[in-house]
Amino acid sequence: MVNIDNIIDLFKKSKVPENIINRGKIGLDRFLNPIKVLLEQKCVPEEPWNDEQIKFFFKILSQMDIDKDTRIAHVGEREARIVSNMQLEISGGFCHGIGRSGFLTAPQPKAPGSSIMYEIANYLAKDAMKKFGLPNIKAAIIVPVATGMSLTLTLSALKPKIKDNIVLEKNKILIPQLDHNSILKSIKFLDLIPKIIEGKIFGDAVRITIEDIEKEYDQNCFGIISFTSFFPPRESDDLKEISKFAKKKDLVHIIINAYGVQSPFWMKLIRSAIDAGRVDAIIQSTDKNFLTPIGGSLIASPIKQNIVKISKTYPGRASASPIINFIISILRLGSRGYYTLINEQKENYKLLKDELNIFANQINERILEVSNPIAIALSLSNFNRNKLRDLGGALYNLGVTGPRVFNPEEEQFGTCTKKVYHTPYIVMNAAIGAKKEEIIKAVKRLKKAYIQIMKK
Amino acid sequence: MVNIDNIIDLFKKSKVPENIINRGKIGLDRFLNPIKVLLEQKCVPEEPWNDEQIKFFFKILSQMDIDKDTRIAHVGEREARIVSNMQLEISGGFCHGIGRSGFLTAPQPKAPGSSIMYEIANYLAKDAMKKFGLPNIKAAIIVPVATGMSLTLTLSALKPKIKDNIVLEKNKILIPQLDHNSILKSIKFLDLIPKIIEGKIFGDAVRITIEDIEKEYDQNCFGIISFTSFFPPRESDDLKEISKFAKKKDLVHIIINAYGVQSPFWMKLIRSAIDAGRVDAIIQSTDKNFLTPIGGSLIASPIKQNIVKISKTYPGRASASPIINFIISILRLGSRGYYTLINEQKENYKLLKDELNIFANQINERILEVSNPIAIALSLSNFNRNKLRDLGGALYNLGVTGPRVFNPEEEQFGTCTKKVYHTPYIVMNAAIGAKKEEIIKAVKRLKKAYIQIMKK
Amino acid sequence: MVNIDNIIDLFKKSKVPENIINRGKIGLDRFLNPIKVLLEQKCVPEEPWNDEQIKFFFKILSQMDIDKDTRIAHVGEREARIVSNMQLEISGGFCHGIGRSGFLTAPQPKAPGSSIMYEIANYLAKDAMKKFGLPNIKAAIIVPVATGMSLTLTLSALKPKIKDNIVLEKNKILIPQLDHNSILKSIKFLDLIPKIIEGKIFGDAVRITIEDIEKEYDQNCFGIISFTSFFPPRESDDLKEISKFAKKKDLVHIIINAYGVQSPFWMKLIRSAIDAGRVDAIIQSTDKNFLTPIGGSLIASPIKQNIVKISKTYPGRASASPIINFIISILRLGSRGYYTLINEQKENYKLLKDELNIFANQINERILEVSNPIAIALSLSNFNRNKLRDLGGALYNLGVTGPRVFNPEEEQFGTCTKKVYHTPYIVMNAAIGAKKEEIIKAVKRLKKAYIQIMKK
Amino acid sequence: MVNIDNIIDLFKKSKVPENIINRGKIGLDRFLNPIKVLLEQKCVPEEPWNDEQIKFFFKILSQMDIDKDTRIAHVGEREARIVSNMQLEISGGFCHGIGRSGFLTAPQPKAPGSSIMYEIANYLAKDAMKKFGLPNIKAAIIVPVATGMSLTLTLSALKPKIKDNIVLEKNKILIPQLDHNSILKSIKFLDLIPKIIEGKIFGDAVRITIEDIEKEYDQNCFGIISFTSFFPPRESDDLKEISKFAKKKDLVHIIINAYGVQSPFWMKLIRSAIDAGRVDAIIQSTDKNFLTPIGGSLIASPIKQNIVKISKTYPGRASASPIINFIISILRLGSRGYYTLINEQKENYKLLKDELNIFANQINERILEVSNPIAIALSLSNFNRNKLRDLGGALYNLGVTGPRVFNPEEEQFGTCTKKVYHTPYIVMNAAIGAKKEEIIKAVKRLKKAYIQIMKK
Repeated sequence: MVNIDNIIDLFKKSKVPENIINRGKIGLDRFLNPIKVLLEQKCVPEEPWNDEQIKFFFKILSQMDIDKDTRIAHVGEREARIVSNMQLEISGGFCHGIGRSGFLTAPQPKAPGSSIMYEIANYLAKDAMKKFGLPNIKAAIIVPVATGMSLTLTLSALKPKIKDNIVLEKNKILIPQLDHNSILKSIKFLDLIPKIIEGKIFGDAVRITIEDIEKEYDQNCFGIISFTSFFPPRESDDLKEISKFAKKKDLVHIIINAYGVQSPFWMKLIRSAIDAGRVDAIIQSTDKNFLTPIGGSLIASPIKQNIVKISKTYPGRASASPIINFIISILRLGSRGYYTLINEQKENYKLLKDELNIFANQINERILEVSNPIAIALSLSNFNRNKLRDLGGALYNLGVTGPRVFNPEEEQFGTCTKKVYHTPYIVMNAAIGAKKEEIIKAVKRLKKAYIQIMKK
Repeated sequence: MVNIDNIIDLFKKSKVPENIINRGKIGLDRFLNPIKVLLEQKCVPEEPWNDEQIKFFFKILSQMDIDKDTRIAHVGEREARIVSNMQLEISGGFCHGIGRSGFLTAPQPKAPGSSIMYEIANYLAKDAMKKFGLPNIKAAIIVPVATGMSLTLTLSALKPKIKDNIVLEKNKILIPQLDHNSILKSIKFLDLIPKIIEGKIFGDAVRITIEDIEKEYDQNCFGIISFTSFFPPRESDDLKEISKFAKKKDLVHIIINAYGVQSPFWMKLIRSAIDAGRVDAIIQSTDKNFLTPIGGSLIASPIKQNIVKISKTYPGRASASPIINFIISILRLGSRGYYTLINEQKENYKLLKDELNIFANQINERILEVSNPIAIALSLSNFNRNKLRDLGGALYNLGVTGPRVFNPEEEQFGTCTKKVYHTPYIVMNAAIGAKKEEIIKAVKRLKKAYIQIMKK
Repeated sequence: MVNIDNIIDLFKKSKVPENIINRGKIGLDRFLNPIKVLLEQKCVPEEPWNDEQIKFFFKILSQMDIDKDTRIAHVGEREARIVSNMQLEISGGFCHGIGRSGFLTAPQPKAPGSSIMYEIANYLAKDAMKKFGLPNIKAAIIVPVATGMSLTLTLSALKPKIKDNIVLEKNKILIPQLDHNSILKSIKFLDLIPKIIEGKIFGDAVRITIEDIEKEYDQNCFGIISFTSFFPPRESDDLKEISKFAKKKDLVHIIINAYGVQSPFWMKLIRSAIDAGRVDAIIQSTDKNFLTPIGGSLIASPIKQNIVKISKTYPGRASASPIINFIISILRLGSRGYYTLINEQKENYKLLKDELNIFANQINERILEVSNPIAIALSLSNFNRNKLRDLGGALYNLGVTGPRVFNPEEEQFGTCTKKVYHTPYIVMNAAIGAKKEEIIKAVKRLKKAYIQIMKK
Repeated sequence: MVNIDNIIDLFKKSKVPENIINRGKIGLDRFLNPIKVLLEQKCVPEEPWNDEQIKFFFKILSQMDIDKDTRIAHVGEREARIVSNMQLEISGGFCHGIGRSGFLTAPQPKAPGSSIMYEIANYLAKDAMKKFGLPNIKAAIIVPVATGMSLTLTLSALKPKIKDNIVLEKNKILIPQLDHNSILKSIKFLDLIPKIIEGKIFGDAVRITIEDIEKEYDQNCFGIISFTSFFPPRESDDLKEISKFAKKKDLVHIIINAYGVQSPFWMKLIRSAIDAGRVDAIIQSTDKNFLTPIGGSLIASPIKQNIVKISKTYPGRASASPIINFIISILRLGSRGYYTLINEQKENYKLLKDELNIFANQINERILEVSNPIAIALSLSNFNRNKLRDLGGALYNLGVTGPRVFNPEEEQFGTCTKKVYHTPYIVMNAAIGAKKEEIIKAVKRLKKAYIQIMKK
């Protein structure tokens, strides 16, 4: 094997003095060392890598895939041939994708590098979840589909299956009301029946009580879905009690932790739920938690076999891009970088709350009392109800993206209750990756839009 | 709006003489013109674009997405934030992915450019299918999952659904035997029951007769899957008869045309099937047909509404990478480039056949008489049966990927029949994108491996 | 001409709603607007551009060069053909380089884009010099050679020339002693005779007095070179007096301002010199002042014709890379970014001085009293003189680059005087672009190296 | 040192089976092996490298430069700091450039990688010249300036120098007339006196006889420049006789072989000249011969010391880009690729001659009888002389670049003689890198332009 050492030795036969080459060798070794450490320790590095290190590592890996070897005679129908080098970029060099007809994590004989790359992604996923709040999980996988399809995949893997061609009656799933289309689509994809438990209003907060959930349960229920991250007035579910209940009734329990990794508060809820009862899988978005382009999810579980089942349920191969994007994020941040992001999120949340409070006082409104570490809702009870819709539009035009304006008298979808909520409101987020300046700008523009529309 | 014309006008205020600038303008206009033509005509360009044109067009589009606009205050939890510019590359600049919770082709307010990009991909997909053999389709979509998951998605969209919480009995699907794990996994994903109709041997060929299919049908069958591209001895299905049968029995009919776009022969079969009876969807791999990295499929249909249904069935968002890879391939090739690839495939097929024939004569074997425009099977009846497995291994080590060696006495999976096939054989492909040199090298190495192992 | 407006109009014929496309248009317009402003105002933008904007602009320009136009028939011997797309990157797309046999700034008929690009570089150079301290210059040029060769080029352009084949006697040039090989090489390149005026010691500082310069003058001197940026104990020259003297004696006066743009102090000296007497050209490094890779210089002059002469003296064409690198730096920084760098430099200088002072007190040494806004010298009078050389080596090994250790008893080159300087010393720089952490690390490692070697 | 072997060993601890990893290792080794071979053999590889191999090698090298090592504290004024990663691309990663104040090929302590890279460029240059026709050279260097400045540099290095401040009388240089501004500028740069020997007409050819050269010689001549590649009617010089004459009179003899490496005919002339008398340096363009972007030259010599002198004459540092571009070309082509280009040039030359001959017969003109392996001149004696200028313009507008139209009655510069040449003519080139289609298009458009203008 040609090695860096051989190359350095050959450099020493050049006219460049050995002490200069040795200086260069030190730099090169520092550059390469994190690769070794990663492979040895199989965990998220503390210090961030730089882009060049990631590219170099990807190059070594992707160069092992057989589509790169020009001496090979490719006489199959799937040989990862491409038309343009742009496609090498889009796939990070991993043209063979991931998975086999066997299952998602099966090594591909034609793609040694992709196979190793995917294994790395998965142990980084596991370690990230352990480090950032869930030491009690046992396995994790990065799947090349976003949270909606991940839920479908997880349900398909963990739900009871037809046996001896006898159709199942156990096809109902309990869902504490969460007004999000994707969740319902994920369930309908498999032709399962959602049993939605309505939210109730407690002060400002909308919650679904464990008592109501228990009431809704019947013999045909096979599982339950619970939620951490969502926006006010909906609060996160009582994961611990749901977990206990799932254990008691032998229900598959899937936690949707869409953008919850960023919040130690939510992660702690999950941690307790795992310890207290039954949790089968926890699904989180790679883009919302790890700042990747959209398209991947991290599924973790305290039960190793569940992750294997999920991996074996996915039919065929899939794009490597979402996997690569996760690796880039996690190596580029390192655990130090991620902790920094978490801290910034906390500061930004406080800033958003303070700014909104000041504004609330000015306009005689208040911040709703709803527990949420990311999102904040401001009442809009004095605002002209006919113009609430315009407020959202005005914010979009002023360059504020993300806020949601609700008029519960007009549309209840979003409040997570069938009761008419007592006030219109606007929700804003201080999510991971947002910048301080954005928070300040957003509130400033909210004021502007508010005044504009009030004056009309 | 700042325009190229404004810029050229400002250039003319420089010291560079106007006639020189006009020369440059001509070049620039030639560079940009294909973008205009594409948007106007909405079809596959005849002439190939170059990479720089594609990049420039992607840049204009992706720059419209709100994650690029630094003046915007992003206060949502999903704002397509990324950690590294490498991720811009991996996503071709389209960090927001595609789809909404609504459905896959819904425009994203935060991502104008991605939304347009996806629409372009889809009309290029439709036009490509029309140009390359199926003028009678009405709609097409590029989905960000490979063929296995695409079948699942299509089945979920088109199968009968639970109504009034009453569980369905219509959950069986007819499948002419095709020994490929992904297909079965796709069906089990939805907990459907496959009714596999066994293949029978006719001379060298394995076929599934329409009579046998009809026999297998019962009232609980809701659909049928048929196949074009597969390797010998299995021949493609009698699509026309299956199509008529589907119409008669009101069956959802899905054609798996995995790598069939490259073959005018297979495309003609599908075309006739559409005209003769009922075809609901035709699924093809983007990587095997359009030489993209693995991860996408093209689903076409003669029924526009079916494509809408499929689009609305996918839960949530998805990675843009497979979509982008398709656009790159189709623009980079142009229809001219694709026809060239088709012609080369035909020549390579002939070359492979000739070379294998010569070898067959030398070793007293023969090419199996099986109709297939891509793959060829060579009998290995005189080869030591205990060493057949070694032959595959030897080829892998000699750098030949893709060939499949079968010993039907050992393993029947792959022959698509439960009968023991009359001879061992090896299959090789002359697929689209393969090079002449690869075909020659592959047969040469086959000879080498053959002799090596025979001598042992 | 295909325009962004046309493209947006065609987008509006898509299924994506117009309000979403309009949102994207706003973002796109913000992205493109700086290009228009640059071409209209021809000055350094206040706000920094991002890389994508620069790339987009370069793409428009470079696409105008005829090597990009595939319909052209190239039947010359110099058509900017390349072997690999990597070379497109290396040249920023500008394969034709700059210049003609006519002169450096002449427009190239084959390269409209390169020609405009070079014109832009030059007006940005001029504006940068005006903004950063020299409002009284009249022209500037970025030359594709570093400071050494730039001096040669400038001397060749401005020195008296042979007439009627009569060899010139006026071939001497006055140089206040500056111990730097490149300067002497630049002069010898043209076979001119340097008349070096020795430095004298004033306290800690080494200066060359105007009186000594005047004494050295004779009838064969045609010019004088003066210096701003250099390291202690040499101080910058008395530019104002030299300028007056040059005017009086009709001497070509070239100021080497190698890394002086970063220092308002040095820029002010030059400004006064221009106002007071005669300055023909001021030469500065693009890498040391504008943080580009090495290879370019900025030559400015209060006399427009001098820059034209320099441009016409360069024989033939040259690489575009140094020009492109300058444009990237200046657009990427904007004037705001450059002022920020200047301020950071000032802070880092103070930090370095403070840190070295503390260390000096600890080891009973002192900071030499030499006026210099970038570099600081620390006496090493108590250090074992035999081991001074080891100190430099130890610092190199500890990962500190840039410091210079002098033992005037051993080697006088570097002190800029023939007198033996009264103490050994070490020089460190707080130059533009250095980071605070580097300053702190450097002093920490100096301590470490100091102690290490003292103990040996 | 972290090595590929260590990394592969760590891969083997993954779940991917060892035989798959070994397959990947083979591919990786094939990818890396050319690096080892290059460093061991120090010659142009026979087989071309691909871009990825070159990038990987550059990455290893450039990573050794100290600007990449983030743990280093940079406290100098020149530390190769950059503003944008785009500049890393422009410099191929080699931000420190090449050279020291000492000389061009001196190793840089801060840039081990750049230093090695430059050494590699130079031995590849030497080997390329040996392989492509000059086995009798002893050394070569790639200089970061184009041919014009390279001639200046070579002259400065090899001409007699001032001694004891006594001005030289030996400042004249003999030049067989070659009508090219750059050459004269190169000489005037150094204030030398060109003694131009007029060309004479022999049939169609313009030549400068050795007798005329001898006549022009006087005691103040120190050198002579001779030429290979130029366009008709000027033929290449009688290098052998000039070489003998240079030896006899002790003249520095520089051969300008601008785009002559592509022609075995011209290379043979030089080879004989070296063997027969005195040749000091041979200068060739990297862009015209090796298809790089403009900006570099290759200077070769049969006298090793001359190359050292040239290297030591260049003042200071310089851009690495032209060096990198040369390395890319030579590795990307390999000797096999270069021979292919040479053969294509020969075929294209024949094609151009045939096509022009056919056209000549149609319009009653003829191809001028001038020996030249690249360029061909067609008489235009019947063309309206007032419209000759328009013909050039028309060709430019029709998209033909490179042809030169001459009307000797109007302008003699270009014919290389003071006699009025007997016919107007047009010159076209079939240079290395041109494509067959371009030749055909060019002649077709020439016909079109010819007819257009004739009809006006």
